[in-house]
Amino acid sequence: MTLNQDPTDFWERTTLLPGISIDCVIFGFHDNQLKILLLKYKGTNFFALPGGFIDQDENLENAAAKVLEERTGLRDIYLEQFYTFGQKSRRDDSKHIEVLNKQGITLAPNHFLLNRFISVGYFALIDFTKAIPTPDKLSDTCEWHDVEKLPDLIFDHNEILKKALETLRFPLLPETFTMGELLSLYETILGRKLLRANFQRKILSLEILERLDKKMTGAANKAPYLYRFAKKSNQYLEK
Amino acid sequence: MTLNQDPTDFWERTTLLPGISIDCVIFGFHDNQLKILLLKYKGTNFFALPGGFIDQDENLENAAAKVLEERTGLRDIYLEQFYTFGQKSRRDDSKHIEVLNKQGITLAPNHFLLNRFISVGYFALIDFTKAIPTPDKLSDTCEWHDVEKLPDLIFDHNEILKKALETLRFPLLPETFTMGELLSLYETILGRKLLRANFQRKILSLEILERLDKKMTGAANKAPYLYRFAKKSNQYLEK
Repeated sequence: MTLNQDPTDFWERTTLLPGISIDCVIFGFHDNQLKILLLKYKGTNFFALPGGFIDQDENLENAAAKVLEERTGLRDIYLEQFYTFGQKSRRDDSKHIEVLNKQGITLAPNHFLLNRFISVGYFALIDFTKAIPTPDKLSDTCEWHDVEKLPDLIFDHNEILKKALETLRFPLLPETFTMGELLSLYETILGRKLLRANFQRKILSLEILERLDKKMTGAANKAPYLYRFAKKSNQYLEK
Repeated sequence: MTLNQDPTDFWERTTLLPGISIDCVIFGFHDNQLKILLLKYKGTNFFALPGGFIDQDENLENAAAKVLEERTGLRDIYLEQFYTFGQKSRRDDSKHIEVLNKQGITLAPNHFLLNRFISVGYFALIDFTKAIPTPDKLSDTCEWHDVEKLPDLIFDHNEILKKALETLRFPLLPETFTMGELLSLYETILGRKLLRANFQRKILSLEILERLDKKMTGAANKAPYLYRFAKKSNQYLEK
């Protein structure tokens, strides 16, 4: 099968924006473990971040949310745009061709997948026990990988991941949490223990947390406060 | 004159990436005044942020640096990517058509300027006394505007500017500076006085400043330290 530019199936759709893609760094956190969701392309050893394209008729943020939903089954998840990657040499097309060849697909020389792509990076942080990882059309696995034992990634995906990790160290998170949970997350991401009092003082001095009600547990006098991050950066999702 | 897709001049170049643009928020700071560089399209009252396109053979960051250089005469300036704008309704093509009509130019219906564009936002902060503002082909003025007295901007440029201002409140700046100068900048951006001791404590607790040598002035014992921001986010420019 040779793919041309005719819109006969997904890989030939001409309603996609021609040179823009999305890459999602999906962090999974549970019981002090931090994992990342990766695809492995069919019949290859190429690992990749979940990604996708943007339809002409679709907002950028919606396209990112769709990638997240298709790969995890989760929707209405906090997604944060963190950087747009536009080095001209960021992709090696021979890998695309190899991936598709494994499936008996040949791309015509003018196929849109062979365009230069600029990719907008998003990250999400979810509880990995709640996701149902689902491969995309080009992959045979979609699995959680420990952040300490990641395989090498295709294209510039190692850089995208590194940038997302740097951004995540800055304070952007989804729902409500206690100071202890936040500390624990940061310790996992940073790979080292932090002094609790010091951490709390710093993070509060940033004035980016909103303190909510106390978390109701059995021992009322020991109940910790819940916090959430002020969702400033989320404004473009809310339109 | 009707523009088609033939590459006979700039507006017909087919070597540009088809649906991606750059918008630059260029802040100018001097003597406690904060200004923003704006274009006014020829024969209209449409004000716009300086912008540009990306050549197939050009890194995204280089395209942004080129916009900055062409509009200010300055090069090797610290440019920070802050957000990518991808709402499908972000541009109103009738304004493009009006701008070009004023110059006797008609766009063919398939002209690339009528594509949907996703725009990558960059900001820079420069000393406005050092720039030589220069209009682009579509504009008759390129001028500094006080941040307190800005005109309404075309397309989603008001939003782009707002997002840049939010980002600038976070600590990303170019060269070296004293704590007093940084405080002064923040006060100007925020439009209110800050408590110096408090400001210094907060900004240092973020661990994003590098302290350099003392600034050499006449009164050596009173010389303030110079600081600079760690250039983490600049890594993609340095390749």
